[in-house]
Amino acid sequence: MPELTREDLATWDANDPLAAFRDKFCRGGDHLIYLDGNSLGRPPAATRDLVDDVITGQWAGGLTRSYTGWIGLGRRIGDMLGTRLLGAADGEVVLSDSTSVNLYKLASAALLTARDRHFIVYDPADFPTNRYVAQGLAAAYGLGIREVPALPGADFCSRLGAVLGPDAGLVMLSLVDFRSGEMLPMERVNALAAQAGARIVWDLSHAAGVVPVDLGTSGAELAVGCTYKYLNGGPGAPGFLYVRRDLQAVLRQPIWGWLGQRDQFQLGAAYQPAAGIDRFQVGAPPILSMAAVEPGVALCAEAGIEAIRAKSVRLCEVLIGLADRWLAPHGLCVASPRAAAGRGGHVALRGPRTWQLCQALVSAGVICDFRTPDWLRLAPTPLDTRFVDVWDALERLRAILERGEYVRLPATLTRVT
Amino acid sequence: MPELTREDLATWDANDPLAAFRDKFCRGGDHLIYLDGNSLGRPPAATRDLVDDVITGQWAGGLTRSYTGWIGLGRRIGDMLGTRLLGAADGEVVLSDSTSVNLYKLASAALLTARDRHFIVYDPADFPTNRYVAQGLAAAYGLGIREVPALPGADFCSRLGAVLGPDAGLVMLSLVDFRSGEMLPMERVNALAAQAGARIVWDLSHAAGVVPVDLGTSGAELAVGCTYKYLNGGPGAPGFLYVRRDLQAVLRQPIWGWLGQRDQFQLGAAYQPAAGIDRFQVGAPPILSMAAVEPGVALCAEAGIEAIRAKSVRLCEVLIGLADRWLAPHGLCVASPRAAAGRGGHVALRGPRTWQLCQALVSAGVICDFRTPDWLRLAPTPLDTRFVDVWDALERLRAILERGEYVRLPATLTRVT
Repeated sequence: MPELTREDLATWDANDPLAAFRDKFCRGGDHLIYLDGNSLGRPPAATRDLVDDVITGQWAGGLTRSYTGWIGLGRRIGDMLGTRLLGAADGEVVLSDSTSVNLYKLASAALLTARDRHFIVYDPADFPTNRYVAQGLAAAYGLGIREVPALPGADFCSRLGAVLGPDAGLVMLSLVDFRSGEMLPMERVNALAAQAGARIVWDLSHAAGVVPVDLGTSGAELAVGCTYKYLNGGPGAPGFLYVRRDLQAVLRQPIWGWLGQRDQFQLGAAYQPAAGIDRFQVGAPPILSMAAVEPGVALCAEAGIEAIRAKSVRLCEVLIGLADRWLAPHGLCVASPRAAAGRGGHVALRGPRTWQLCQALVSAGVICDFRTPDWLRLAPTPLDTRFVDVWDALERLRAILERGEYVRLPATLTRVT
Repeated sequence: MPELTREDLATWDANDPLAAFRDKFCRGGDHLIYLDGNSLGRPPAATRDLVDDVITGQWAGGLTRSYTGWIGLGRRIGDMLGTRLLGAADGEVVLSDSTSVNLYKLASAALLTARDRHFIVYDPADFPTNRYVAQGLAAAYGLGIREVPALPGADFCSRLGAVLGPDAGLVMLSLVDFRSGEMLPMERVNALAAQAGARIVWDLSHAAGVVPVDLGTSGAELAVGCTYKYLNGGPGAPGFLYVRRDLQAVLRQPIWGWLGQRDQFQLGAAYQPAAGIDRFQVGAPPILSMAAVEPGVALCAEAGIEAIRAKSVRLCEVLIGLADRWLAPHGLCVASPRAAAGRGGHVALRGPRTWQLCQALVSAGVICDFRTPDWLRLAPTPLDTRFVDVWDALERLRAILERGEYVRLPATLTRVT
């Protein structure tokens, strides 16, 4: 089979059923290639006018009369997100707080129903907040921690099975790893946890909006996630949380705020958690940031998560193929799983001096990011990335490697967001 | 002394040193009189362009390169708010999460240093979230609750002193009551708590931006508050929290997120809380909503909190005088403290059928609000309310009372935000 050419990719772009979505996003500076949408997705073009209407119409014009609409916003966007992209039912997903706070709420709620269990299980390479929240809860509840590394290529499930046991209270895992991009087999992991009688909280931050997630049929109990990556919700946009319907009446989260109260405007003396998913809310949500989540979720729903995933797999395969061809000879190697079924929406490369490489690549107009100690992450987000963008980005990276000047850049980590 | 006339008030407006601030806010519909700024302040005129720049410049244009500015935003706005309006020092105030979540964090942190104490003290008429958060913590820590009602006119401090004792772990109080508008004597209350060895968390939601708060010299330890009332930060804008400098190293909050971690981008294995106020942050803040807090805080700082308070006191005195003259004969009576020193920035009226009165008044173009069971709240926010607005609003209310048709409105509470 002949090697792919840029012309081939241009043809793919011309025939891409999702091509029209590219113009539905704001793109500041068309010379830029943006492969960092797994850190912060671009703004949908509709977001600017929507937020302006929230400020001038709803806030300035409606004033407190607009509360009626605002108070249900997290539920309304949560339902669209849950049913269209996450395989949840209506009333199982709500936007609320940050991902970290949501993790704390759901993990605490789970632990409160597992008083006879003695440890929490997590991946020692998981995103820091997930580990730190677990450590805080372990300290508060007097629990131990057992680590089960989710290394690409190794058999995660057998190692998880070996760690689980009658003492395991809670498993906290990311569906897609923030560095390697490895995607865990959610249904098998859920079955293992259920078999051991342990609850499980999933972090879907690097999965939502780029891979099909089937919370409903996979046996998932609890999940949280971020809306500002593949869902294009905006910097620090409120996170989401999922609680399976049958668990909603069983679980209570520890932060008893007025928005989680039944009949909240009765100002009752004692906290009585609301029915359903509402009890997992706490206080007033940040409306400008929350309203801004809707356009990105709507675009993903319109495109369809299966079509997004199909393009994402092809983009990543092109990226991996070009990396093998152009970058591996320079020692920069693909570190993400090669089988699409085990990989999320980004591809990580590892090698010497990736921090400096990342800086040089950004200077060359390709926005990507670095994660300590040596991971270079490239995320070709399907709704706004063309196949030729992947070609051009990797060609710029190859040129940087060939020129070799990047090795003289300072090695200090001045900013690694 | 002759009775005030509308002409007198027009003269006051003409001579009002803060008059120019009125045009620095968006006003949707100039026929409206807005006396609900203690629920949701109007948008500053600068906010619309600022948020538009965050979306088009920082988010669309800067993409992930803008994280550098965003990550310090809560500290930067917190410093302006703390030093200019709350009597705090640099590095003692940060914007973060919702007021409810902040209450939970600080109250938990305080209780963790009071393990030998057995109860929490609160006002049974305080805003629900304050009581509910306390109830949740009492349940989690196995603590009791003692109630000390902050009724206007009664001597709060002697009743608080009677309740406090060697067993009191934590006192949670609002500086200004959300219904009555009663303002507690912060310095005396702090001294009482300190004498009993109890920690105290203040909720400044109904005080910040309208009354001078002197956290530094009053002996306050911990405080939280809302930015979307008198600070005009926008619907659900992030709350703020204050931790006195010397307590920052002593206290640890329970939600261990990546933003509270020391050297967060090293992705370290174990959670090590950051030095200073940063350890009270948790996850990514909602940037659109957080950026929108700055213009309102800046306007209050520019006007000066003493000038704001001076006008607020006069506005409330006019309101009380007209209420006594026009409304009391109809049974609608001032329920807020009459001495300015014991009152915040709003005036509450109580009487029969205040729910229907509130609806009729809104229909007549005066936005105010109702709190169960019979409180009608009127907040003449100093930066955007004229003295004649108070006259006109009360005149409309008097006309409604005189016509008496409001009694036929439905008594159902369909919305009470």
